[in-house]
Amino acid sequence: MKLGKNMKKLTRSVLLVGKASDCPELEYATGFRAVDPVVFVQSGERQYLVVPGLEVGRARRESDSSAFREHHSTVNWQVEVLSPKMLGITDQKRSRLSDWALKLLRRLDVAAVSVPPWFPHGVAERLERAGVKVSVSKEDLFPDRAVKTLYEIGKITQSQQAAVIAMRTAMALIADSEIDRNGYLRNGSKFVISEDVRRVIEKVLVEHDCFCGETIVAGGSQSADPHERGNGPLRAHEPIVMDIFPRHLEHGYWGDLTRTVVKGRPSAMLRRMYGAVKAAQNAALTCLKPHVKCATVHRRAAQEVKRRGFRTGTEKGRPFGFIHGTGHGVGLAIHEGPSLGLADGWLKAGNVVTIEPGLYYPDLGGIRIEDTVVVTPEGWRYLVPCEKKFEL
Amino acid sequence: MKLGKNMKKLTRSVLLVGKASDCPELEYATGFRAVDPVVFVQSGERQYLVVPGLEVGRARRESDSSAFREHHSTVNWQVEVLSPKMLGITDQKRSRLSDWALKLLRRLDVAAVSVPPWFPHGVAERLERAGVKVSVSKEDLFPDRAVKTLYEIGKITQSQQAAVIAMRTAMALIADSEIDRNGYLRNGSKFVISEDVRRVIEKVLVEHDCFCGETIVAGGSQSADPHERGNGPLRAHEPIVMDIFPRHLEHGYWGDLTRTVVKGRPSAMLRRMYGAVKAAQNAALTCLKPHVKCATVHRRAAQEVKRRGFRTGTEKGRPFGFIHGTGHGVGLAIHEGPSLGLADGWLKAGNVVTIEPGLYYPDLGGIRIEDTVVVTPEGWRYLVPCEKKFEL
Repeated sequence: MKLGKNMKKLTRSVLLVGKASDCPELEYATGFRAVDPVVFVQSGERQYLVVPGLEVGRARRESDSSAFREHHSTVNWQVEVLSPKMLGITDQKRSRLSDWALKLLRRLDVAAVSVPPWFPHGVAERLERAGVKVSVSKEDLFPDRAVKTLYEIGKITQSQQAAVIAMRTAMALIADSEIDRNGYLRNGSKFVISEDVRRVIEKVLVEHDCFCGETIVAGGSQSADPHERGNGPLRAHEPIVMDIFPRHLEHGYWGDLTRTVVKGRPSAMLRRMYGAVKAAQNAALTCLKPHVKCATVHRRAAQEVKRRGFRTGTEKGRPFGFIHGTGHGVGLAIHEGPSLGLADGWLKAGNVVTIEPGLYYPDLGGIRIEDTVVVTPEGWRYLVPCEKKFEL
Repeated sequence: MKLGKNMKKLTRSVLLVGKASDCPELEYATGFRAVDPVVFVQSGERQYLVVPGLEVGRARRESDSSAFREHHSTVNWQVEVLSPKMLGITDQKRSRLSDWALKLLRRLDVAAVSVPPWFPHGVAERLERAGVKVSVSKEDLFPDRAVKTLYEIGKITQSQQAAVIAMRTAMALIADSEIDRNGYLRNGSKFVISEDVRRVIEKVLVEHDCFCGETIVAGGSQSADPHERGNGPLRAHEPIVMDIFPRHLEHGYWGDLTRTVVKGRPSAMLRRMYGAVKAAQNAALTCLKPHVKCATVHRRAAQEVKRRGFRTGTEKGRPFGFIHGTGHGVGLAIHEGPSLGLADGWLKAGNVVTIEPGLYYPDLGGIRIEDTVVVTPEGWRYLVPCEKKFEL
């Protein structure tokens, strides 16, 4: 039995540096959501976290509840929390993170580390000058992150629930509006504008301890750009895309939900577009189960809109049609693995993914329908069902 | 006149890669707040931005309004916005940012770039393998960022205004509460808990198009940890630290405001602590003006609390007393230059900084008073004044 090489792989050290709020890997591994940047090392089965002196107590309390540890509950994982002072750094000036990392790696006798692609180049350069070999990992450093535990699914469900309640509130607001003689939506004497609908959504989210800084409420031609947040008065008979992706303020897990609605009467073409997007979502959902290729899910959705006559391409440098992937994983990051586009990868039970086909044409507007679902051993289920109603 | 060397310095190229929301430098230079990561190059007096094909139109519209351009309004700055396709990248797969950067640098005939310390190591490594020299800049790549234009001061004032209104709402809630026989604050039959006060604050912020994910409402012993967000029932006669730092959802500029209040009667020692922190803030404010050393501001504040008998040090690895710097710059980042600690640097007219001395003792709790002010040619002024009231 030749274990040598394999053993080495197992005991390869991982180094992370940064703020947990900017770095889901760090949050996943440590469970510690600090304001200040920290240093994290995983060496073999041991984990170490260096935090500012005044954070040591809190880091010790919080680092016992990380999703990482829940995943590996059969192993006695324990994060050793250290302050710079405990590493012998007594400098009164704010010492640099690379010093913290270097002292810790030396104490652990680690001379080579794997880092994620976003790892700060300034720190990497400093470590390499000091003789530490820094390798960017092409693979996920914590591949288990894409497979959610029951605990994590519960947290994502909380955020998704907030999104559903906010979506219903926004839909009711649009449904209750009146259409004036110029085709604008009015609430009494006031125009219904994207900004106000967004504010209503954000308020509901905050009431549920969630927040989404980039909620989309985009009407008419604005809806043809999937990243346009939307602004100004909303009009009748045109699509209004509402994309709500709240993050929970306490635990940091996201939810993701999109609906497209029309107040008034959509054209026959818009109805066909909506039908195609809904059918594409169903086609994608139908093939969701463990061991299916991620690209298969995307291809099914793309085939469905194509079969219904909706073209995808580029005109004058601007893409039109089904111009993005079918979905992405959701967890401590709003976009994480698995990606449901054309890249490699297989679905696993416990993946939490969005299924969000869309069609976008500059002259018609955009239509997108998105739900967040969990892949189960048998297939999939909605985290929180939300009605799909096009005409309000 | 030997211009050669100097010219080279002036025409040194800067490379940034990332999402504007994670990278204030990028937001500052381009004015473009995209969801997707982008590539930015400044070569001589020209600027280039590579964005996904479907973002080109929006990037062109938004990149004309950046603070950077306002700073350099005498120069005809113009960002050239490009898509990967315009650089000859036709790969159907999601192409990597390092490809975008490499193609752009080759087109511009740039072989060496300066990057910030946080620059992603994965991209730096790839560029270096392709023969581009990547140097981490020790200096700020956009030192003008610390000097705000009138436009920027107006934006920060908006966020500060939201913080002041939210603070007053929270103060009124605490002032209107009743003290039960066990010393807990009650609102009718309900306990007043940190989480509820925070939710009230967040709602006011959202109503003003702002958001602060990490508002602090920490009472009693929790207030002794300056980063503790606070949880559970609030008690009478104990300090309650409220730190509100909202970011505006549209333009991304931050505000920052802290007050410490007591419902009921604080002890004589707490009153002395409050007096010392307020005096320290005044001492720091009094010396604020252009050409003063940043460290001087901090030393004045520290002297003031020491003179009043409040010690700073460490006990059992836990720091106590005046354990942080006196302030920091505020702009597109909540913490940016100039730093008002012990580091080098001089104040300039147009700096927007917090002045926030604090005292923290595990057995007494914490007291911090923070305002955000602008350094003027003659001295300083509050962005938005907010009353300082200790006993409610």
